[in-house]
Amino acid sequence: MYGYTQAKALVYSKYGEPKDVLSLHKHSISAPHGTQVNLRLLTAPMNPADVNQIQGVYPSKPPFQTLLGTAEPSAVGGNEGAFEVIATGANVKTLTKGDWVIMRRTGLGTWRTHAQLDESQLIRIENKDGLTPLQVGTVSVNPVTAYRMIRDFCEWDWMRAGEEWMIQNGANSGVGRAAIQLCREWGIKSLNVVRERKTHEETEALKKELKELGATAVVTEGEMMTSGFKDTVAELTRQGREPIRLALNCVGGKNATAMAKTLAPDSHMVTYGAMSKQPVALPSGLLIFKNLSFDGFWVSRWGDKNPVLKENTINDVLQMTRSGRFKDIPVDKVEWKWNLEGPQLAEAVQGTLGGYRSGKGVFTFTGGDE
Amino acid sequence: MYGYTQAKALVYSKYGEPKDVLSLHKHSISAPHGTQVNLRLLTAPMNPADVNQIQGVYPSKPPFQTLLGTAEPSAVGGNEGAFEVIATGANVKTLTKGDWVIMRRTGLGTWRTHAQLDESQLIRIENKDGLTPLQVGTVSVNPVTAYRMIRDFCEWDWMRAGEEWMIQNGANSGVGRAAIQLCREWGIKSLNVVRERKTHEETEALKKELKELGATAVVTEGEMMTSGFKDTVAELTRQGREPIRLALNCVGGKNATAMAKTLAPDSHMVTYGAMSKQPVALPSGLLIFKNLSFDGFWVSRWGDKNPVLKENTINDVLQMTRSGRFKDIPVDKVEWKWNLEGPQLAEAVQGTLGGYRSGKGVFTFTGGDE
Repeated sequence: MYGYTQAKALVYSKYGEPKDVLSLHKHSISAPHGTQVNLRLLTAPMNPADVNQIQGVYPSKPPFQTLLGTAEPSAVGGNEGAFEVIATGANVKTLTKGDWVIMRRTGLGTWRTHAQLDESQLIRIENKDGLTPLQVGTVSVNPVTAYRMIRDFCEWDWMRAGEEWMIQNGANSGVGRAAIQLCREWGIKSLNVVRERKTHEETEALKKELKELGATAVVTEGEMMTSGFKDTVAELTRQGREPIRLALNCVGGKNATAMAKTLAPDSHMVTYGAMSKQPVALPSGLLIFKNLSFDGFWVSRWGDKNPVLKENTINDVLQMTRSGRFKDIPVDKVEWKWNLEGPQLAEAVQGTLGGYRSGKGVFTFTGGDE
Repeated sequence: MYGYTQAKALVYSKYGEPKDVLSLHKHSISAPHGTQVNLRLLTAPMNPADVNQIQGVYPSKPPFQTLLGTAEPSAVGGNEGAFEVIATGANVKTLTKGDWVIMRRTGLGTWRTHAQLDESQLIRIENKDGLTPLQVGTVSVNPVTAYRMIRDFCEWDWMRAGEEWMIQNGANSGVGRAAIQLCREWGIKSLNVVRERKTHEETEALKKELKELGATAVVTEGEMMTSGFKDTVAELTRQGREPIRLALNCVGGKNATAMAKTLAPDSHMVTYGAMSKQPVALPSGLLIFKNLSFDGFWVSRWGDKNPVLKENTINDVLQMTRSGRFKDIPVDKVEWKWNLEGPQLAEAVQGTLGGYRSGKGVFTFTGGDE
């Protein structure tokens, strides 16, 4: 049918486990009118928050709609991804065929082979030639989270390059790896906490890998929990002359408390995740006498409130990426071939929350426009 | 001996329970030279932090010295109080005999019948005629704590008078009563949490008393912990249209968590005490998705960093006091007669941490200058 593009989207119409509620919906997309833009998926990652959203336990819930012609009102899964422009409406001014774009806001649904959105919903990637779809498709959540937490929660401009520290747990995560590299670029030393791997060799390999990314020091959670860790911190920070000013926490529980204890007076801990499912327990003395501050960061909310700054942040990270100063995260690629069935795709999503995946799950789409 | 004033001070030379380590030291004070000022005690309160300081568990520790001629290096107990100027050195410019003063910093020792300090260590009380020694002697810790926590931790200037709330636990404390009255003055509604008293009648009497001070609502800790409290909060705040923007916490543990859950998004909890001795437990969702911020406040540190603002804050509270808009806290007076023995005074200090005292313990001194 002339002017129509065949599309498939991974949708859900009720909350639950991805493998139970996700299904593949086939539909067609008309030629774009006015400011509409037709897109083809390049790469879309599976972030833990995407799964929480499908489970219904995430506070940001996309509306269930019938715009794609689903039998039940549905939402498309996924919150970030890189798309290629395949056609533009007559009034589209800033995009042309072949451009790469990402979605301006979360919640629009990225797990789909094709999409039709309005020009205003898209951010054009400048100078895409030095970039890969993976780099563009994973820039807007994890790197932006790391970037803003480091820049916005301590008196960043006052930090003395090479003489002040950041500590973080979950240092092996997408956010953690981004934080390591940003700290390296910005002259902040980083003390990185990772969970023990299955074998000592794997743990040592991970430490080495993170140090190669720019980590100043890497310790395991178990090492942090020993009483001797105080001395390790004293040695690393030259008896506190190089203060730890910022903690990034995605674990919670005792891990977070142990990190808080390493902080210098007047420092900040920012929580952006809760992998342990335990609350952050704050001995009152840390609040009152050390004057520590505890905040949270949620990139979706932040981005919606600060659209311009978000775009600038993304451009800054992509510039670092082009110049080789920001490395790709390890990924587990799931090739979304046109004929792949819903259950196979849903199974890939289901695996996201395991935590020990060898890399972030990402859909890549290379199929043509059927 | 001409020019000498006999003095007694409640001193300690090692940390421990007040009844075990406090002793009464008699000494003499010379006529003041240069910028020295001789003082006579009017009123000095016993705050819980004073006791923690003597126990050695408070991070601010006055130096042990032999300036008063003690056999062992010692510190004088107490951190706030009102004194009367009884003599001034030739170079003293801002104080004259009969003036009332308070100490500019904490840690100088106020549990003493007389003292000799430098003019620079003292704040003169303007227009003392409308004030009592009790009002002056208790203004610099509790009311200043309440005042700064309300003003400095939320976007105070943006709060809509009569349409926004503060919640606090320990509402019956010196800080709590100050907060109730300041909120009333500033058009902030206050939701106040108190511990159940021994009988229902006593609890009701306390609720009535706090309401008369200006509390918008008073609930018991038990009432806050029931599942129905959500509905109470919804009703009080008109389904959130009158948001709770600030929580003041001196209890910790589950009490603090319950208060945090009542807060509107982007609100703040400030911790200034830990009566339950339990850490503040923060469900990560409150940090990440509700964007709550958790800070601490320590008035000693704040005052040392902000001496001018501290003086202005004190003057502001005393102005409210003179005009009858800031009521005296309930007190348990301990008259410090010249001949009272050390153990009697130490016993009074020991009773400070009980928590159910009918009022704040205060030393008053009316004896002459022996």
